[in-house]
Amino acid sequence: MMDEKVGRDEEQLVMEQLISFIKKDDIEQFREQFFELHPYEQAQFYEKVTPPIRQKIYYYLSPQELAEVFQALEIDDDTYVEFLNEMDVSYAAAMLSEMNTDDVVDVFHELDDEDRTQYLTLMDDETAEEIHELMQYADYTAGAIMTTEYVSINENSTTRMAMNILRNEAPTAETIYYIFIMNMKKQLVGVISLRDLIVAGENVLIRDVMNERVVSVQASDDQEEVAQIMRDYNFLALPVIDEHKTLLGIITVDDIIDVIDEEAEDDYSKLAGISNFDNFEQGPFAAAKKRLPWLVMLLFLGMLTASLMAQFEDTLDAVAILAIFIPLISGTSGNSGTQALAVAVRGLATKDASNDESKMRLLLRELSTGAIMGLLCALVVTGIVYFWKGELIIGMLVGVAMCCSIIVATLAGSLIPLMMDRIGVDPAVASGPFITTLNDITSILIYLGLATAFIL
Amino acid sequence: MMDEKVGRDEEQLVMEQLISFIKKDDIEQFREQFFELHPYEQAQFYEKVTPPIRQKIYYYLSPQELAEVFQALEIDDDTYVEFLNEMDVSYAAAMLSEMNTDDVVDVFHELDDEDRTQYLTLMDDETAEEIHELMQYADYTAGAIMTTEYVSINENSTTRMAMNILRNEAPTAETIYYIFIMNMKKQLVGVISLRDLIVAGENVLIRDVMNERVVSVQASDDQEEVAQIMRDYNFLALPVIDEHKTLLGIITVDDIIDVIDEEAEDDYSKLAGISNFDNFEQGPFAAAKKRLPWLVMLLFLGMLTASLMAQFEDTLDAVAILAIFIPLISGTSGNSGTQALAVAVRGLATKDASNDESKMRLLLRELSTGAIMGLLCALVVTGIVYFWKGELIIGMLVGVAMCCSIIVATLAGSLIPLMMDRIGVDPAVASGPFITTLNDITSILIYLGLATAFIL
Repeated sequence: MMDEKVGRDEEQLVMEQLISFIKKDDIEQFREQFFELHPYEQAQFYEKVTPPIRQKIYYYLSPQELAEVFQALEIDDDTYVEFLNEMDVSYAAAMLSEMNTDDVVDVFHELDDEDRTQYLTLMDDETAEEIHELMQYADYTAGAIMTTEYVSINENSTTRMAMNILRNEAPTAETIYYIFIMNMKKQLVGVISLRDLIVAGENVLIRDVMNERVVSVQASDDQEEVAQIMRDYNFLALPVIDEHKTLLGIITVDDIIDVIDEEAEDDYSKLAGISNFDNFEQGPFAAAKKRLPWLVMLLFLGMLTASLMAQFEDTLDAVAILAIFIPLISGTSGNSGTQALAVAVRGLATKDASNDESKMRLLLRELSTGAIMGLLCALVVTGIVYFWKGELIIGMLVGVAMCCSIIVATLAGSLIPLMMDRIGVDPAVASGPFITTLNDITSILIYLGLATAFIL
Repeated sequence: MMDEKVGRDEEQLVMEQLISFIKKDDIEQFREQFFELHPYEQAQFYEKVTPPIRQKIYYYLSPQELAEVFQALEIDDDTYVEFLNEMDVSYAAAMLSEMNTDDVVDVFHELDDEDRTQYLTLMDDETAEEIHELMQYADYTAGAIMTTEYVSINENSTTRMAMNILRNEAPTAETIYYIFIMNMKKQLVGVISLRDLIVAGENVLIRDVMNERVVSVQASDDQEEVAQIMRDYNFLALPVIDEHKTLLGIITVDDIIDVIDEEAEDDYSKLAGISNFDNFEQGPFAAAKKRLPWLVMLLFLGMLTASLMAQFEDTLDAVAILAIFIPLISGTSGNSGTQALAVAVRGLATKDASNDESKMRLLLRELSTGAIMGLLCALVVTGIVYFWKGELIIGMLVGVAMCCSIIVATLAGSLIPLMMDRIGVDPAVASGPFITTLNDITSILIYLGLATAFIL
């Protein structure tokens, strides 16, 4: 328990108190204490209590109040459905109507068609229509993560009118720190931050103080591109428009942080050869299920290595000492391949290698890098084998094989993700274990091929 | 060029126009067009032009104006120094005084003592003092990334007074979307968002509308913890306090995005066995220099594998077919080790495994997961060897060895990062290649050990 934070105890205390209020059916006290918490803390409480306690919460809180809690939840997809099923259908529909549209869409993606239709029928028409439209956008696009709760105003309004609108929309808008400005055709023509609005003073025409160079994205843009723009410009929100420049929605910085986390986790898990991270809470069967596909696929790829080696059985039979250095050569080339892979995947993600010219330059650079590292490792290993075993010929053979393997591995480590990117596949799919297994094959082919040619 | 974005052409055009204004010495036109750009775009321009053009920019822009540009730069550490050296010393000092303190501190960390002292002497005393204090905080702590440009107000003020203060501070504060509230002892007692301030209306006592449950961090807190809080609570800024609850500074969401990026890149590069990512622009020698330390270290570790195998030379001599399956067994166990490693590192980063009990649970889970995967892979491989080579004994040997190796590798993959975390070392240091090389040793020991015991 020593690495627990001090705050935990206080949290625990508040939780116990809230539960005791519920058990005493003391609505007043419960509500007073509950609303002192931040939505994140409310969500933590809601998520951790038992279903009977949650039943009481549905009774104590209005759908609107629970909406705030529900959209702050950080739970597995299945759990959303579980929680919704606990509620009365009309209560659930009312709550969903009050949530930010982007959060509703996230939840709706987990429901089956029947449930979804049921909720949509019970929601007010306008919201239902909005959500239906948002659900059309493909996953991982700007459209899929945007929300329609933004503040907009006509360009001919004054700053005073803008402040009034803000005051009205403040309780429901996802952010009031940017106001998006439209012309008569409902096209996005400008943006003003609340900061600039405050500095501008009252009774100025919005048109005269707005920023006309609005940075915006299209609904079909990839969420990673959106994240990159937010990062570069340090925006708190970014407008999403269609081809007619009509404002469709906005993406806020908190959603972008989730995107950045998601993408980083995705790259990381793929480098390790896992399709999905298993939650620590899941059992060993669930964990094994997530890792076995890769492992078995790589096992079959590894069988290729074995069958390749079988071709050299005579060589291995004749000079048994050769086998000793196989793991060393294949291991080192595998390591250099993984390094090159990570550099290439990273470079593609950060757009350092965005055009063909820079890709070609990267490949040439990796070839040279591989040659430098290969030569150096070859010298080291030849020296070691000579001084340890007194075998100069074997030492040189191991050295040459290692040098060639490292060059091939470094080149493959960068070429494969670049090729994948070229054909439109996520380059991160080429995982570390995959590259390593592939390099096992090439390095053994090189080593035993050279041995058969020069020693026997 | 097909994957270039359309926006690029426009960007290029604006850049050429700006340069042509500079060449014609048309200050007016240059300034007009330049200030229509967003600071990020201004920084991109400033960073890309030649030094003679930059000399003109120093002449056209006031130090205050350049400060906005300078703090939006995304360049290598050395380049900051290069740019500063291009400027007149007093101009540079004036510019640094106008920058946000957290950005100045970043730049100052790159300077040598002499330059730093020179600039500090030329800056006004208050700013110099602030920066000097900020520089005392250790890297990767909340103190090191916070800024002192926040808006604060006494709890006895009214909302109208708060709005007036905001209006005055809007041009320089890093964020005006949170106002931090102090008591007479200058202790942080509350916070109010600009949103709530607007909703509250005028002439209300701040004390009555502020949020008293302020979430704050200590200056010595790790930046990763700060990022986690920002992520959970969706804050735009977070106050940093000392042990007396005095407000020291704030951390804004844009800095946290940088932290998240940095940490993700760090974990990723370590999993791949690279100490630092090499920039695509760097040459092969620079790239090789960054990867060789790991590679050579692992090469020596790999020599252990070779010397271990040398102990089994007689066994290998007697049954040459044994060697064929070595890469398969060590490869598969290496892969399962990398998977387990990634899960453990990730779990430690997201605090899923924060106490001893959950760590023990994780280890037990991984042991079971390894057993499940090991048994399944063993069955597959025994079957293949039997049907392919007709060797049941060898097949069973390979199967048993693989099963044991996978169990050991899975356990090691989770145990090593947990142990590192325990002794206070970043668990991500246990890279994929390191675990893989380590598992080479154990799997070969298991395989050839079993073979020697049961076959010979």
